[in-house]
Amino acid sequence: MTKAVVLLSGGLDSATTLAIAQAEGYEPYALTLRYGQRHQAELASAARIARASGVAEHLTLDLDLRRFGGSALTGDLAVPKDRDLDTPEAGIPVTYVPARNTILLSLALAWAEVLGTGDIFLGVNALDYSGYPDCRPEYLAAYERMADLATRMGAEKHRTIELHAPLIRLTKAQIIRKGLALGVDYALTTSCYDPGTAGRPCRRCDACQLRAKGFAEVGSPDPLLAGLATPTP
Amino acid sequence: MTKAVVLLSGGLDSATTLAIAQAEGYEPYALTLRYGQRHQAELASAARIARASGVAEHLTLDLDLRRFGGSALTGDLAVPKDRDLDTPEAGIPVTYVPARNTILLSLALAWAEVLGTGDIFLGVNALDYSGYPDCRPEYLAAYERMADLATRMGAEKHRTIELHAPLIRLTKAQIIRKGLALGVDYALTTSCYDPGTAGRPCRRCDACQLRAKGFAEVGSPDPLLAGLATPTP
Repeated sequence: MTKAVVLLSGGLDSATTLAIAQAEGYEPYALTLRYGQRHQAELASAARIARASGVAEHLTLDLDLRRFGGSALTGDLAVPKDRDLDTPEAGIPVTYVPARNTILLSLALAWAEVLGTGDIFLGVNALDYSGYPDCRPEYLAAYERMADLATRMGAEKHRTIELHAPLIRLTKAQIIRKGLALGVDYALTTSCYDPGTAGRPCRRCDACQLRAKGFAEVGSPDPLLAGLATPTP
Repeated sequence: MTKAVVLLSGGLDSATTLAIAQAEGYEPYALTLRYGQRHQAELASAARIARASGVAEHLTLDLDLRRFGGSALTGDLAVPKDRDLDTPEAGIPVTYVPARNTILLSLALAWAEVLGTGDIFLGVNALDYSGYPDCRPEYLAAYERMADLATRMGAEKHRTIELHAPLIRLTKAQIIRKGLALGVDYALTTSCYDPGTAGRPCRRCDACQLRAKGFAEVGSPDPLLAGLATPTP
């Protein structure tokens, strides 16, 4: 089996990506970053998903991106709520974490090089509402070119680096359908950018809204919400 | 003044690079990574250099690259000693840390984006003995292209990312001459890959040998060695 590093945040997209990597025959090495995200609940989700999926190894690294600041996801700006997702705001959302995917991929690249593989999976998505520059196909292509020059395996021509982004052109509903077909247990995942106590989703941030829209389009209840009381308005 | 992020390891090259950035009129924000390097002495050197240079800010981040393994510099392989630097070994040395410069640059990129600058300085060098793939000019050019696509500032065309590598084509002697002309105090720097107690250089690893050769060519004593006793053979 070919090894692959899979970036696993604990969200719906990365859980689906992990299942796809396994379905394609890769032996997954899951990598999670504890970067000071306010949605720490996703770290527990990542651990649950890794365990349930039987990955070869699950590594959680610590790197405190709050030291840089500049993002709603690391605490110094408020997470937007109740936005109309059909009317995208101008520019890049405040939930963008500066260079986060570049940092994540660099860590994945380091581990891939030690494992002797050039295959890296990540759950980025360019459709639905995103607006993050580091989720675009042209970004990933440029990253691959850079990574081939950066590494021993690239320089010595053993391997080229391939970034697998199987969700990049899918809608949230298509992602959920694919995951359900592969047996992903979405009850284990967390999407909310601003969860309350015990990781309870706020249901009002972009991530919660996108997730709800996806399950509604699929016509299937979100297993994460089963058993949670309806929030009081 | 234009802000610039300067990668500062605490070694001779990065101290010189910092002095060059200042001489070119940039306001330096120095970034150091505590990654589990066996030559931890360089962290104290970085702090001393930052203080002596009057940087705008010095940020030391923690990220334990020992979790990945695969390098002599993070502990699981022996640091080569007494090699003949005029006869380069085949391939990439074991002191190569997988994807280290890519990780360092990604962190610099995140900070640069928050600071609102596209200028990043790093002390990589493609001459002398190196052999690290992530020190080559073509790697840096590919990184710049990727970084422009990765970031808010690149995507919104405020700024493009520029990696300044002023030492890339210089020999160690040329670097030292330049630094001495700029008033760099090399007594504050550390180069050894495998220092003994109290950060004492081994004088036998590649880094020590290159440094000694550089000072010899300049015809100037290494101020770091002043006061240290000659090692018993």
